Amino acid sequence: MSKLIPVAVVILSILIGLFITYTYRQQNELPEFDLQRWWGSGLKPEKEDSSIRTFKIDFNNTMIEDLKQRLKSRRRFTKSLEGMQSRYGMNADYLQKVLAYWTDKYDFKKRAELLNRFPHYKTKIQGLDLHYIRVKPKVKEGIQVLPILILHGWPSSSKEFDKIIPMLSTPRHGYNFVFEVIAADLPGFGFSEGSNKPGLNPVQMAIIMRNLMLRLGFERFYIQAGDWGSQCATHLATMFPDNVLGFHTNMPLSSIPVISTVKLLIGSLFPSLIDSGRPERVYPLRKFVSYIMRESGYFHIQATKPDTIGFALSDSPAGLAAYMMEKMAICSNRDQLDTPHGGLENLDIDDVLDTVTITWMNECIVTSMRIYAEGTSSNEINAVHNKPTEVPTAAIKFLYEVMYQPDWILRDKFHNLVRSTIVDYGGHFAALHTPKELADDVFDAVTEFIKFHNTRKK
Amino acid sequence: MSKLIPVAVVILSILIGLFITYTYRQQNELPEFDLQRWWGSGLKPEKEDSSIRTFKIDFNNTMIEDLKQRLKSRRRFTKSLEGMQSRYGMNADYLQKVLAYWTDKYDFKKRAELLNRFPHYKTKIQGLDLHYIRVKPKVKEGIQVLPILILHGWPSSSKEFDKIIPMLSTPRHGYNFVFEVIAADLPGFGFSEGSNKPGLNPVQMAIIMRNLMLRLGFERFYIQAGDWGSQCATHLATMFPDNVLGFHTNMPLSSIPVISTVKLLIGSLFPSLIDSGRPERVYPLRKFVSYIMRESGYFHIQATKPDTIGFALSDSPAGLAAYMMEKMAICSNRDQLDTPHGGLENLDIDDVLDTVTITWMNECIVTSMRIYAEGTSSNEINAVHNKPTEVPTAAIKFLYEVMYQPDWILRDKFHNLVRSTIVDYGGHFAALHTPKELADDVFDAVTEFIKFHNTRKK
Repeated sequence: MSKLIPVAVVILSILIGLFITYTYRQQNELPEFDLQRWWGSGLKPEKEDSSIRTFKIDFNNTMIEDLKQRLKSRRRFTKSLEGMQSRYGMNADYLQKVLAYWTDKYDFKKRAELLNRFPHYKTKIQGLDLHYIRVKPKVKEGIQVLPILILHGWPSSSKEFDKIIPMLSTPRHGYNFVFEVIAADLPGFGFSEGSNKPGLNPVQMAIIMRNLMLRLGFERFYIQAGDWGSQCATHLATMFPDNVLGFHTNMPLSSIPVISTVKLLIGSLFPSLIDSGRPERVYPLRKFVSYIMRESGYFHIQATKPDTIGFALSDSPAGLAAYMMEKMAICSNRDQLDTPHGGLENLDIDDVLDTVTITWMNECIVTSMRIYAEGTSSNEINAVHNKPTEVPTAAIKFLYEVMYQPDWILRDKFHNLVRSTIVDYGGHFAALHTPKELADDVFDAVTEFIKFHNTRKK
Repeated sequence: MSKLIPVAVVILSILIGLFITYTYRQQNELPEFDLQRWWGSGLKPEKEDSSIRTFKIDFNNTMIEDLKQRLKSRRRFTKSLEGMQSRYGMNADYLQKVLAYWTDKYDFKKRAELLNRFPHYKTKIQGLDLHYIRVKPKVKEGIQVLPILILHGWPSSSKEFDKIIPMLSTPRHGYNFVFEVIAADLPGFGFSEGSNKPGLNPVQMAIIMRNLMLRLGFERFYIQAGDWGSQCATHLATMFPDNVLGFHTNMPLSSIPVISTVKLLIGSLFPSLIDSGRPERVYPLRKFVSYIMRESGYFHIQATKPDTIGFALSDSPAGLAAYMMEKMAICSNRDQLDTPHGGLENLDIDDVLDTVTITWMNECIVTSMRIYAEGTSSNEINAVHNKPTEVPTAAIKFLYEVMYQPDWILRDKFHNLVRSTIVDYGGHFAALHTPKELADDVFDAVTEFIKFHNTRKK
């Protein structure tokens, strides 16, 4: 009797497939976008400020004292259920330990200093004051300097890249190029201003990021990105293929509506025939769906009521830390729910607390969470998703990345998927977790991108 | 082409229907339950404390001062997006007004006094110290006194019933019976202790509530309930039909796995043929599903990571208020998202703040949210869901109740649905929103229950 289920899946898939083919086939045109849409408060002024200012990260004493005071006067936690470790979320005893470390041992001044070893800047794009790091490499003659934009996701900021920036901007043996790195905070994240206007979705952020690169004098550049940053970068490559020399992603996703889903369903009938990579990362689908259901509550609430949950997270540093850290833990190793740390110890605790501290001090948890609400339902996003891109693309698939798609699905979106690496380690926060492996893959991917362009020229 | 979708729905429904019929047909037996399972800390003692103690609600000065201090020193809110009113959750400006009222105008002492006009008690059941209100009516000769247990849901407590208790316990013209009311706080809610052991789901709560009623000397009683309370009551009626004389619910749900869902899907093809009530409350399904998706983020996160979100909610009274009030608002009128209050003004603000204050002072947000995690996946729950009950049942369907099921689905579970009332006003918190209408319906329902039993006797 249970054999009826695959039959039903196939019938349904074919019907949906036909329906989609008819409905979407002629929708390859993008809508017209206002490339200077105003996201600042009030109306767009006559003359905009296009200055670039240097910036230093300052964990100041007032902020630190206030934070420690709030951590010390927090209310007691409800105990975790007996034996449940991290199954119902962050473990209370473990959280207590991390908070003690944050209060007593985490060296705010030293951590800020460490972040300030890179040159930081701010500039206003479309009304929002954006923060970015820009590192120019020192090179000998014969080494080409290539601009690369690197983009983070949630909960994160350009801080995520402090290990990888030196790796990308240092010339390495065997490569005749090196990178000038621009690591930007997305609007509403880290030190970048958020908007008070609705509609600032990843498509609009792609436009903003392109304008940032143009302001810095880069007409053509590479991109490396993960998570929501990878969504923005995918849109950037789709909308402005002439600006993107190549796109490297550690969260490759084809979101061509429904076609990819249909393929995913059909794939469940013959997983290993269809994916020579790691079909076990997504099949059996039942297991995958149950993991997604278990871990996507934060996504669901942030996509629908980001402001509601934001009031508590903005007001309680202990609560904010728990909320952010639980997700950082799971996304680094989803199989460690039966430990007190739930996966968190795959990351350096100082890196984790840098991220929490930056979010706390900038009061940007609400503006950053809103990307889920803005990013999940809009005709313009669907339109951009639905158009494939010709920009050469490379993917690296780490073991515990949140989502996994086989290459035969990725190629729906990325017509020139020139490289696809699968590794059996690492997780979602690759730049924090396995920075060397990520940097290595970027160098090799860009080698492929250069070959790709050279072949095309001939 | 879009006509293929209903065809696919029918095919899929029939296949699933057949599958279910074969899989579940012989599963009408309930598992064996330990009716004295120990939920207290540590191991079950040799001798249990079965005393009943009087109890007074005390909003004491230490709690009040600490709460006000935290509200005053809260961090500033992120502004709501321009023009979004309550669409991304609680509106920041409106929340600020409610918090100012809570701090400066809400009369803690007077509110506690009001709640204390009823006799409150505590007693230990299966290791948990439970709170309940018990009101005996004053009656003249010839008026029968009937015991009724009333149960709340989330986010709530027995406080929800302070308007309806006098209505139920006062004899009324035309009825030869009146109620002795027992309004209990579910374990982990209000003033009732939560458990530190996993597994305390609504089925187990049903066992606990039955034991409470037996301790109070009631072998046979009526029940009125909504929300999770109605789930507990449904289980109680299913597992212990001899104890339940009749069940009145304002959130009637047949959760017989999948059969009800299949019927719901089939119903979408011929809504008004199948439901002579208010098919528009659930069809078109697309609209209903989109509403459910929009409003169930809290459910998703509470069902998977209640502890994570609980740290922030336990630590920030502003955040707790926003989180609870947004849901109380939506559930009272889901069509008011484009107002600053988002539906909240359908309720009395003092009632709402009583509920928030009780949750804050008892630090029970985490233990109460865990009912979603415990209540959504367990073989024992599915087994009880899957068995119909013969207990006479009456349903009232208020306009903005969270879920709506037509009677032809309800009868799968409730074989003796003796009364079903549909009204075009009111919402989920019926006892706060439309207490008189709810009480009236309970009197009429119990009249029907009595008739039902009299007919059976003959």
